[in-house]
Amino acid sequence: MTRTVRWVKGHGTENDFLLLRDPDGTAYRDLDAAAVRAMCERRRGVGADGVLRAVRTDAIDDGRAYAEVAEWFMDFRNADGSTGEMCGNGARVFAAFLYAEGLADPGTELPVATRAGLKRIRVEGDGQLTVDMGIARFPASDGLEVSAAGHTWSATAVDMGNPHGVAFVDDLADPGPLFDPPTWSPSEVFPKGVNLEFALRRGARHLAMRVHERGVGETRSCGTGACAVAVTTARVDGVDPPATYRVDVPGGTLAVGLHSDGHVELTGPAVLVARGEVDV
Amino acid sequence: MTRTVRWVKGHGTENDFLLLRDPDGTAYRDLDAAAVRAMCERRRGVGADGVLRAVRTDAIDDGRAYAEVAEWFMDFRNADGSTGEMCGNGARVFAAFLYAEGLADPGTELPVATRAGLKRIRVEGDGQLTVDMGIARFPASDGLEVSAAGHTWSATAVDMGNPHGVAFVDDLADPGPLFDPPTWSPSEVFPKGVNLEFALRRGARHLAMRVHERGVGETRSCGTGACAVAVTTARVDGVDPPATYRVDVPGGTLAVGLHSDGHVELTGPAVLVARGEVDV
Repeated sequence: MTRTVRWVKGHGTENDFLLLRDPDGTAYRDLDAAAVRAMCERRRGVGADGVLRAVRTDAIDDGRAYAEVAEWFMDFRNADGSTGEMCGNGARVFAAFLYAEGLADPGTELPVATRAGLKRIRVEGDGQLTVDMGIARFPASDGLEVSAAGHTWSATAVDMGNPHGVAFVDDLADPGPLFDPPTWSPSEVFPKGVNLEFALRRGARHLAMRVHERGVGETRSCGTGACAVAVTTARVDGVDPPATYRVDVPGGTLAVGLHSDGHVELTGPAVLVARGEVDV
Repeated sequence: MTRTVRWVKGHGTENDFLLLRDPDGTAYRDLDAAAVRAMCERRRGVGADGVLRAVRTDAIDDGRAYAEVAEWFMDFRNADGSTGEMCGNGARVFAAFLYAEGLADPGTELPVATRAGLKRIRVEGDGQLTVDMGIARFPASDGLEVSAAGHTWSATAVDMGNPHGVAFVDDLADPGPLFDPPTWSPSEVFPKGVNLEFALRRGARHLAMRVHERGVGETRSCGTGACAVAVTTARVDGVDPPATYRVDVPGGTLAVGLHSDGHVELTGPAVLVARGEVDV
């Protein structure tokens, strides 16, 4: 049976999402993977990289543990319908949606519960949004190499809650069109796959990158990937925090702040562009 | 200055469009190329292959010549903002939109004025829609060859109002990923470029095809391309009309009817899936 879902569409550096308002968790609790896929399908649906459902923490099982510290839970679903944990670009768009809907106050720090823990979001003076992405870790990755389009680069493994491999390139075109996933060795460094970033130095504390996301392909932006590139650059250059890096991605520009307490903050835009309903 | 445009989204075999209701031509007459591009952008906008504006023929310069024979003009704009002439898949979706909006009667044949002339659309018993695509012509194309992915095929030139080249392949994978446009020779057969179809025989009067559209790339469907494949097959096989061919495209299935008076009819689905507004 066809049902109608009301949505708002937003994007952060061209990572786009359909946002659903479901405070008490009753409107779209039963939205199954097939419905999410139908909504996200670019031509047969509205089209998006994922769905972000705004549910009060006390109205969803995954959120109850956070009910005392956060009002809102970000129920993130990937375009294939699977449950997602966290997305830095998505978290900014999620916050912009709560503000626009009058469900949160942009004047104070916003705690948001996710399946990857509690995240804190704030609005900057220029209207951009900053998300605390937690602490980066460097798993052992001696001798790690990444290959694409006949080139091979040495790379660094970074754990941002999800696995990354960062390689510095001389030209962003060198990894080729990335139609085929890049390969890495030794393979056991990333037993569950990896997001691979190809980073180019553009100036002091200024980088550009392309990214191949695990299970997705090349994308226009990856928030955790931008963080991985910045922390790796700081490590290679022996830069101690605090420090801020600009990271250009194909879909726009992000800023990554490294703090003395080890936390990594991601700053970037969030734009709400359309709203409507879709039959699924 | 940001403005808001109201739209309905529909698709025909995964060729998708944003439909605008503008009977007296005043609401969206001044929608410029930048606004169309913004709406059609997949991640920064809603996303579509094009925009179809429904305007009464007497309310738009391109439509006035048809005011006595058709109430509606299909103002077709490509995703890049340029003016389009005609689109077989778009015409079906356009008719489905007029029916859904109560602007036309699905019980009678619907004349629609386009920049490529008057088109007639009717609803079939199974809910599919049929568009009279006019008459196919075969320009001289002796010795025409098409090449892609290291393969070369002989091909036939077909004029469906727009130029096509049809090649029969043994495997739909042979033309490769079509990231790069296929080439053809002699080049003077198609001085303004061409839409190239790679057709596979699947049975009696049953074909499958892939298409590389001029200026676009590989697409999920092409209505005039399906017609070109069917008329070429009938010609090669010496089949006289009336005859009906099934043509499978990546986005679905189309039927092409060849009639004794030379007219070619295209039948396929049209689905309206979402509606809303977008800021441009």
